[in-house]
Amino acid sequence: MSQRDDRLAQAAARLDFPLEGEIGKGGDYAPVVRDGDRLYVSGQVPRVGTTVVVTGRAGADVPLERAQQAARICALRALVLLRRELGSLEPIERIPKVNVYTQSAENFTQQSEVADAASALIVEVLGPGAAHARTSIGVYQLPKNATVELDLIATLAGG
Amino acid sequence: MSQRDDRLAQAAARLDFPLEGEIGKGGDYAPVVRDGDRLYVSGQVPRVGTTVVVTGRAGADVPLERAQQAARICALRALVLLRRELGSLEPIERIPKVNVYTQSAENFTQQSEVADAASALIVEVLGPGAAHARTSIGVYQLPKNATVELDLIATLAGG
Amino acid sequence: MSQRDDRLAQAAARLDFPLEGEIGKGGDYAPVVRDGDRLYVSGQVPRVGTTVVVTGRAGADVPLERAQQAARICALRALVLLRRELGSLEPIERIPKVNVYTQSAENFTQQSEVADAASALIVEVLGPGAAHARTSIGVYQLPKNATVELDLIATLAGG
Repeated sequence: MSQRDDRLAQAAARLDFPLEGEIGKGGDYAPVVRDGDRLYVSGQVPRVGTTVVVTGRAGADVPLERAQQAARICALRALVLLRRELGSLEPIERIPKVNVYTQSAENFTQQSEVADAASALIVEVLGPGAAHARTSIGVYQLPKNATVELDLIATLAGG
Repeated sequence: MSQRDDRLAQAAARLDFPLEGEIGKGGDYAPVVRDGDRLYVSGQVPRVGTTVVVTGRAGADVPLERAQQAARICALRALVLLRRELGSLEPIERIPKVNVYTQSAENFTQQSEVADAASALIVEVLGPGAAHARTSIGVYQLPKNATVELDLIATLAGG
Repeated sequence: MSQRDDRLAQAAARLDFPLEGEIGKGGDYAPVVRDGDRLYVSGQVPRVGTTVVVTGRAGADVPLERAQQAARICALRALVLLRRELGSLEPIERIPKVNVYTQSAENFTQQSEVADAASALIVEVLGPGAAHARTSIGVYQLPKNATVELDLIATLAGG
């Protein structure tokens, strides 16, 4: 197993995320679409197995630390989907863009702090070359009442 | 007329969308920008002629079925814009990414179900190779009080 | 100095934006990531120096004109980041996509009018070839209570 795939397994264990189970999705779309050397990963909510494990509004029902945990699970799911598509995380050259959507209370303004937890997990697993451009916004609702949703673009070496 | 263009005409007829009329827009931007083999379609609201035909909040003023109809019109507009840009829908190789924004009531969590209606129309017109990565979120407002907004990226064969 | 860089300096002076100061950011991400001939600029809020200068909800605390000023500052920041990355704005070929997120009051529906101010500044500085696809949505909150957030993609000549 490569270093990246090994670190993915460690992160999954820490987040109680079963690495080999089905990665459920909530609609009729493709989890990952490859376009030449670029891969688009669909919006991920913090679903583990068939359950969205962090739901509700950050800053109201959901404290910052719990929203950050949700963001980590979303990021982990994106990486697991990329590993399944590619067989390994090694071919990934770059993560040019990550978008993080946080279901927010009216006055909750720590969307960047939520997203930082996702960014840290991505860099922990893929290494410092995975530093990415990012957009973090606070939204009114998300599918299945998820607290966080995350999507990203990955590119392959030679891309 | 190609099969795709024919299916586009059928979908437009079903949605009472005049295929040859002006595709109005609500601001100073380009409806479609081509970047090499990639085309970016601007955010589309369910405007038919000069009227946004589905407005208000999904889950409050607007039931799910009506929000889905809005999503279909947004998707149709995106495809019509691509056909005008390219002369036909045949050159499209892939739709790597679709984003669907639903103006949501506080507790409305069926954003994926709204987006599924758009995804189904795209695949109906372009064929199964148009399965796409997707992000669906619930937003607080949209231009012109539209219920749904949708944007997408398309790529050309050989891209 | 090139025409574009000159026009950038003029726009910065008009917006009281110190062109040479630090471009602060609010989290652990890269302000700009280059992926071949494409550059992804992270979501920009209207921060000048260390202060987000326009905060609150468009249509409630913040009138349209002030939200438009916020959008201009966000767009300026994106261009300043591109100039720092590239040394000059001259190599930019195209701005294929701009996303504008406006923190909105419940019934504020002029997100396109807010975004038009950003689009106009981009075209003013880069020229008419910078007309771009765009998505404008109304969100519930933004990092640091910013009124507007904007991200974009730029491509280089020969791209």
